[in-house]
Parts: sequence; structure tokens; C-alpha cells
Amino acid sequence: MTDTANIAKGLEGVLFTETKLTFINGSEGILTHLGIPIQEWAEKSSFEELSLALLDGELPTAEELAKFDADLKANRAVPQALLDVIAAMPRGIHPMQALRTAVSYLGLLDAQAEDTSEEGRRAISIRLIAQFATIIAAINRAQEGQEIIAPRMDLTHAGNFLYMLTGKEPTGEQARLFDIALVLHADHGMNASTFTAIATASTLSDMYSCMTSAIGALKGPLHGGANEAVMDMLDEVGTPDQAGAYITRKLDNKEKIMGVGHRVYKYFDPRSRVLRDYAEHVANKEGKSNYYQILETIEKIVVDRMGAKGIYPNVDFYSGTVYSDLGIKKAYFTPIFALARISGWCASVIEYTRDNRLLRPDAVYTGKVDQQYVPLKDRA
Amino acid sequence: MTDTANIAKGLEGVLFTETKLTFINGSEGILTHLGIPIQEWAEKSSFEELSLALLDGELPTAEELAKFDADLKANRAVPQALLDVIAAMPRGIHPMQALRTAVSYLGLLDAQAEDTSEEGRRAISIRLIAQFATIIAAINRAQEGQEIIAPRMDLTHAGNFLYMLTGKEPTGEQARLFDIALVLHADHGMNASTFTAIATASTLSDMYSCMTSAIGALKGPLHGGANEAVMDMLDEVGTPDQAGAYITRKLDNKEKIMGVGHRVYKYFDPRSRVLRDYAEHVANKEGKSNYYQILETIEKIVVDRMGAKGIYPNVDFYSGTVYSDLGIKKAYFTPIFALARISGWCASVIEYTRDNRLLRPDAVYTGKVDQQYVPLKDRA
Repeated sequence: MTDTANIAKGLEGVLFTETKLTFINGSEGILTHLGIPIQEWAEKSSFEELSLALLDGELPTAEELAKFDADLKANRAVPQALLDVIAAMPRGIHPMQALRTAVSYLGLLDAQAEDTSEEGRRAISIRLIAQFATIIAAINRAQEGQEIIAPRMDLTHAGNFLYMLTGKEPTGEQARLFDIALVLHADHGMNASTFTAIATASTLSDMYSCMTSAIGALKGPLHGGANEAVMDMLDEVGTPDQAGAYITRKLDNKEKIMGVGHRVYKYFDPRSRVLRDYAEHVANKEGKSNYYQILETIEKIVVDRMGAKGIYPNVDFYSGTVYSDLGIKKAYFTPIFALARISGWCASVIEYTRDNRLLRPDAVYTGKVDQQYVPLKDRA
Repeated sequence: MTDTANIAKGLEGVLFTETKLTFINGSEGILTHLGIPIQEWAEKSSFEELSLALLDGELPTAEELAKFDADLKANRAVPQALLDVIAAMPRGIHPMQALRTAVSYLGLLDAQAEDTSEEGRRAISIRLIAQFATIIAAINRAQEGQEIIAPRMDLTHAGNFLYMLTGKEPTGEQARLFDIALVLHADHGMNASTFTAIATASTLSDMYSCMTSAIGALKGPLHGGANEAVMDMLDEVGTPDQAGAYITRKLDNKEKIMGVGHRVYKYFDPRSRVLRDYAEHVANKEGKSNYYQILETIEKIVVDRMGAKGIYPNVDFYSGTVYSDLGIKKAYFTPIFALARISGWCASVIEYTRDNRLLRPDAVYTGKVDQQYVPLKDRA
């Protein structure tokens, strides 16, 4: 009862299962999926391929990938009943509340929703990966009072999402940049939203319950939302010519700079360099936005002054500007995170339930003992 | 990397926080809230009072309880927009999918939804405790093609729920029996749904996200649903005169009997006796249903043959029959569980976030290492 010394706060360092999906070595800046470094996935693969590889635990053959891609495309459209619910949602709501509700509602429309076999979970996962894009774009459009745009089947997952969101077909480079961003965020070990999805799955609950749980956890400001904070900083800076003075003052005052350093990566966030390089490539071609120019200035000063101490810009530092330059509003950065992480959530649930154990940790009781119920009239 | 020996499967025995709410000693059959035995809560208190005591961590004064009761009543009605969504849900859906969706949607209609201060969480908790009753009754009515019934303000929380569900005002004894069942299920330590609610809350996400996560976890057959299995058994028995032969055969064959024994309680489930005794009181007065007569026969034989080994009927053994005799359909037993457990969920989230720590356990990586991305055309 007074075992408080043995409390594993935040479950930090507690090993609760095995995984063959993702490996992270924060002190060396390593992130791999299926043993392949994230840099290779980002440079050579696609969100579609990584999603399938995570679901099945191995690199697909060309035939398997073509089938998966066709399955995703065939499932891009969502039921009209769901679009009606999204269109009828009140305006001004938190996009993650809307996403959580829409995904939960989608479960009501899926005749296979209660299928918790591995095949069932996999089939639902494919639909969810495809439909998250349509749902998030539809929520954004509806909330802005714009018409919802139907998916196109001739674009990649990333390209089609940008098209459904903005109504404009992205350039090949823009679509590829967004694809890279999705690859970089598809999975990241036992983060809080993946863990919450697993906790829900551990009761052998259905995929829709697992995914609504994960969305709810990702919504919290301690999890999703870091790149929004970077954008707040860029907004605070204002214009590119003010960036140098702003960041120098922050560093001189030892103030926290958003998007710099990472809890897990003590050396270097392996996701940040690849996103940075491709973002630069697109910016050079499309023209550098104000945000991008501010970012460049901040990056240069931060790396000069902090790099020697192992503190570098992380993936959140670049992703917000990338998203913003692609026409995505700040409030939708966390839904975009979900758009990518859905693959990791689904793959992790499938892997965990293959050798399932109900999650039931314990707490140390530090409250009163041997109390009696005092009748209401006798209470002070 | 090969640390598999150190895995705490299911997080069993892992202490991750402190609590002053609930204490369980399974080997001695003890369950207390705020140090007061569950038997006292059930016999002397009410669901309203226990809910407030859990939220605030102490027995309320008469004035505080009166205010809380008035607050609950004032919040019984739900927005018409939510009732419209419930009425428009497809028929034949899983009631817990419906509950998860309705609670998520309610978040869209609550202007305070994003308030994650302790006061905000408490205010939302009071509304959710009140509105779970209205939502669950409305889902049941809508799914049965019946008109949704508005709440009455002159009945207790338990009595009003039965009224909204059946359209009939329950007798005082029926309302009290259901109230006892709610008290017995209001909280039970770090069970999987409470833990999932806490995992979601640990990212500092909002109450609606926490509660939809908890509903999703409770939905799983390894968590909620045990009393449904008892009813399946009673249905299998058929008529009271067949009960003796049925259960004797099961025991002779050493088959598992639903609702007998408990993972946590190795001695005696302290919740079962009080529910049993009051159920008998009501059955003697209202007439014994077939289910009740079957239950009596099974109980007698089980206690005679297994009691010496410390195996007794648990709370699920009685609750199903109690609910069924009160006019509740088997498919709604898990939503009824949520109707009670909402108080424990809310109280646990409030307690945990007071000294919050993001939950982020770890997994042992047992997959491939040092792999390279093989171009698609070069794969076998």
C-alpha cells in the first residue's frame, strides 16, 4: 500500500510487449521500420508501400503493392451518410473532435466493424487508411463552408488528399513532398496514441474503437500539436527580416524554441533532414514563402549556436511550414498527423492482438483506510 | 534489444500511479471507495452520492449532495441535435458503437469541450454522468423503433433511466435495485477502460476523447460483456426444472461456468452478495422470473460443490438477471456497465491529470536489423 517508490511514472522504460515493426535509438538518431532506416523509406518508398509493409511486416512484392494500391483507391469514397453527418456538424469545432466522431460514425456504417479476426482487422485497416484522407479533407471543406470534393483515382494517396483538400491538383513535387511527410510520420514506436489504441485493442475491441481511442490521445497537446507551436512561433516572428533578431534574443535569454531538440532523439531527429532537403527542393522551385524564409534564418542560427551541443531542429520544425506552404491550415496539422499515423496504429493493433494480453496495470493506494459510511445528517 | 525476459506482459503488477479512490484486495474479497467498504456504499448510499464522492475524493455534505443532484437533473436533457443523430443511426448496430459515437458527437455540441482545467473536467463530468443515462436510453429506444422518452426530474438517476428506457415508472424497489447495481459498478481500480481513459488523458486531451476511449475499451469482450455470457448460459438452460441437471453435468465435466469465480477476487466478490440479497428481496415481491429461478438453482449447487474451494458466484452472475428482470435487453448490459463506470472514469481522469505524466511505455524490438530498402523490381 505504501509502495510509492516502485511507481513507474508514465510507464517510462516499462517494456510491455515485443514488436518487429519499428526500432528507435534516440541517442544515435536511428529510426527504422522493419530494420530499414527511415531515410531510405522517405527517399525511395511511398506512404502506400510503407503502410502495407507495416501491416504485413515485410516488404511487399510488386504485385502485392499494386493490389494494395488498387484496394486503397477503391475505398477512397466514403458513404454518403457519413458525408451528411460531416456536413451537418456545427462550425468552429476542433478538427480532431470532428475526426474522432466521423471515424466512430463510420463504424456504424461498416457491416464488418465487429470482425476482430486478423483478416477482418486488416481489411478494415485498408479502408481506414484510404478513408482517413477523404474524411479529413471533407471535414476541412465543410468547416470552411466549401463543397466537399470527391476523391480522384488517378492520383497518389498524398496527391489525392491535397486535391480533395484544396480543389487544386498539386504538382508532382508537391505531392511527393507531402508523401514524404506522411512516410516520416507513419509510425514511431509505442507513442501515446499507438499505446492507447493497443490498450483498447487488448480487450479485443473492434478497430473503430481502437482508432477513435488513438485519435482522442493524439489530440492532446502533449502528443500531436508540436508543429502547430512552431507555426505560432513563425507567426510571432512576423516577417523574414525580423527572424534573426527574434531567435538571437530567444537564445540569449535561454528561452525554449519550438521544434528544436526532441525528447527521444538526443542526437539528431533522423526524420528532419530528409524533410528539410526535399522542402528546400520544392521551395526553390515554387518560390520561398515567408514562413520558409523565416525558417531558414532560424535554422541557420540554431544550428550554428546549438548544433555543437547536439540540439538540432526536429521534424516538427519543418513539417508545419511544409504543410502550410501546401495549403493546409494550422488547425489541420494534427489531423494530418493522424492521416499518417493511422498506418502505424493499425499495424500495431494487428501485431499486438496476434498474441494479445489484456492491459491491466495497477496503482498504489495512498488513500484512507478503515473508514465507515457516515450518515448524511451526521456529517460536518 | 533481446530483453524479452523483462517484459511485463499485460502490464500485470506494474504500478504506474497513486490513487486515493479505490482499493481492492482480491485475496480477502475487499473493495473500498475512499476507504469505505463497497457493501456500505451499496446498502446506505446512492449512485449520485458515490459519483460525487469519487469526483471530489470525500464524502459530500448534505448541501453539496443536494447541489450535485440538482446539477445532474438540470443536465439530464441532451441537445436535440444529438437526439437527431441517434435517431438517424442505422438499425442493428452494436449499442456500444452507438454510445461511443453519440458521446463523441456530444463533444461537438459542448462549448466547454476543450476546457481541460480541473474545474472544466469536473463540470463536463457532471454533464456526462447525467447524459449517459439519456443517451443510452435514447439509443435503445431508437434502435427498437420506439419514440425517445424525455427525462423526468422527479425520479432518481436510476429510476429515471429505467423510466426513459421502458416508458414505465419503476417501483421504488426496482429503482433501488438498479441504483445498487450502479453503485456496485461505479469504479473498480485500474481496469482496462479506466486505464485507457487515463492513457488518453495523459496527453492532456479533453474529457470527450477520454470517455470515447473508455467506451471503446469497455466494448471489448475481455472487459464488458461477462454478464451477457451468464445470460447466454441461462438461455441455454431453458427452463428452471432443467437447471439442476445442466449445472451438475457442467460441474461433473469440469466445464467453465460463466459468472463463477473472478480473476481479481480469489475468495469472494464483495459486490455479489449485496446484489444477490436485494435481487431476492425484489424477486420475492415482484414474482420470480424464469431467469431468477434458474439462477437460484445454479447458485445453490455451485456454492454447495465449489464454495469450499473458494469459488463463488461473482457480481456478473447476478447482474444480468437483475437487468433482464428490470426490462433491459442483453445487448444493453455493456452500455449499462458504462452508465455506472462513467463516474469512475471521470474521477480517475481528474485524479490522474492533477499530477499528470504522459504514458509512454516501451516495447522490445525483436525484428530484423540492418536491412536495406530493396527496389521493387529486385524483390523475389
